Amino acid sequence: MSTVIAPSINTPQEDAEALRKAFEGWGTDENTVISILGHRTSHQIQLIRKSYEDIYHEDLVKRLESEIKGDFEKAVYRWILEPADRDAVLVHVAIKSGKNYNVIVEISSVLSPEELFNVRRAYINRYKHSIEEDLAIHTSGHLRQLLVGLVTSYRYTGDEINAKLAQSEAEILHESVKEKKGSHEEAIRILTTRSKTQLIATFNRYRETHGGSITKKLLDEGSDDFQKSLYTTIRCFNDHVKYYEKVVRDAVKKIGTDEDALTRVIVSRAYTDLKNISDVYYKRNSVLLEHVIAKEISGDYKKFLLTILGWWHL
Amino acid sequence: MSTVIAPSINTPQEDAEALRKAFEGWGTDENTVISILGHRTSHQIQLIRKSYEDIYHEDLVKRLESEIKGDFEKAVYRWILEPADRDAVLVHVAIKSGKNYNVIVEISSVLSPEELFNVRRAYINRYKHSIEEDLAIHTSGHLRQLLVGLVTSYRYTGDEINAKLAQSEAEILHESVKEKKGSHEEAIRILTTRSKTQLIATFNRYRETHGGSITKKLLDEGSDDFQKSLYTTIRCFNDHVKYYEKVVRDAVKKIGTDEDALTRVIVSRAYTDLKNISDVYYKRNSVLLEHVIAKEISGDYKKFLLTILGWWHL
Repeated sequence: MSTVIAPSINTPQEDAEALRKAFEGWGTDENTVISILGHRTSHQIQLIRKSYEDIYHEDLVKRLESEIKGDFEKAVYRWILEPADRDAVLVHVAIKSGKNYNVIVEISSVLSPEELFNVRRAYINRYKHSIEEDLAIHTSGHLRQLLVGLVTSYRYTGDEINAKLAQSEAEILHESVKEKKGSHEEAIRILTTRSKTQLIATFNRYRETHGGSITKKLLDEGSDDFQKSLYTTIRCFNDHVKYYEKVVRDAVKKIGTDEDALTRVIVSRAYTDLKNISDVYYKRNSVLLEHVIAKEISGDYKKFLLTILGWWHL
Repeated sequence: MSTVIAPSINTPQEDAEALRKAFEGWGTDENTVISILGHRTSHQIQLIRKSYEDIYHEDLVKRLESEIKGDFEKAVYRWILEPADRDAVLVHVAIKSGKNYNVIVEISSVLSPEELFNVRRAYINRYKHSIEEDLAIHTSGHLRQLLVGLVTSYRYTGDEINAKLAQSEAEILHESVKEKKGSHEEAIRILTTRSKTQLIATFNRYRETHGGSITKKLLDEGSDDFQKSLYTTIRCFNDHVKYYEKVVRDAVKKIGTDEDALTRVIVSRAYTDLKNISDVYYKRNSVLLEHVIAKEISGDYKKFLLTILGWWHL
């Protein structure tokens, strides 16, 4: 159940040549594509892309797009981009779709401030607009304030906590959550500017004083996009591994499976905490995540995700 | 009237030793301090700071603070910090004072997106808070939205312009400026997210359609901090050299002189467009900026500013 990708012993050139061979002739040799790309680190894949371009004067990403299709293609595409570039694509898709604001919240709240800034840079390089520019035009009111504030944040990452502040701001959040229809500007200020450590102290303070998690009162039948995003923000800061476990759980629970969400979590977290997410999933559901995935999806898409998870051996 | 600082032929070690000698004995040899620091580039000064620390195990900045005082000290202090660090200090002072929001607008709108991001990084290193964190707690409503939006922006810097957008957004700005008391959220969105090139196209479009500059209607007797900041934002994007000329003009016109503003412009723009600001000043006032400064201020402070301007030779 390891998610550690062992460094390849092939050179980038050898991998590029093997991929080229897999594309040639009638049809694509998907097994080779899966076996190579699914067993390489992001850095190795960037070297393979470069080698491929140097040898064949062709963009590997574009070639893959024409060779494979469906959820498999989407997963491979997200996998072979550099992390910041991939997240820029995910944010762009979320903005354009006008829903899935949770993807934007997730990337803004889980990444480190420097990583988030790299996503903003990658987004501008790709789309000639800033994230906040596209996001602000597609949203308004409190939702805009929250999402733009999250995405443009550059937070303090040190350990210093202000305990008094945690207490007073826990009360501000309480008012905002309780009132619901009142002014949420102060809650937005807190969530978009305070450091992660400070926010966790504030959430803990809330739990002590009000005897329950702050998210409990936030999500009910009538929740709008703003309240849902507020909820996701707090969950991501509090414990993003638990949050991702829930995303995966919901994705496989659905009739038809939510492939986009499943791919997103597996591809985005493979290098960091996919193992933890997988462990929490097992604890919560008493089923191995790999077994559920093997049952719910199929074909090359299934082989590829299970390869990333270290459970498929070609 | 050149503002070009010629590279020094002394080594950083020699400069560090000369400064140390200037501090020793009874009183400080201010002329040496002015002659060395006023003739070095920012990069050279950083090397001198390092040499000084290596040789004397003492922070040059702290030593200077104890050796000199008043407006002279303030000017030297701002001069010897790295530009991003100096701007972080300026932003911090402006936030704490609860006025001078124009300094925040200036830094956010005149610097390149990468430079602005470096200021945010320097601010966090120095104060263990983010700029937006401190700024948001000291402001509210539209003023907060505008200033936080400006400071956290990371804009597209390419040449691509959307002409249709320039036209429609010129009308949005018109509504916001005309109404004044209406909702300004869309005007804030435009000014905090669009690229500089796009904004200038929008302002030009406004001028063509409404026969006058957009700033004309913004500033009158009853303007509040938000309207003043809106005004400064537009002026900084439109033509920041003209804007800085006005800051300097107002600074020296005052009874008593506004030393903070004067120092800020001269020290911040010395490496880039102080020569242009000085030219525009001459065109507008038919007096050389150096002459006015020589008349309005005195002592070591005067010698130091004129040295930066290339007009004082010790």
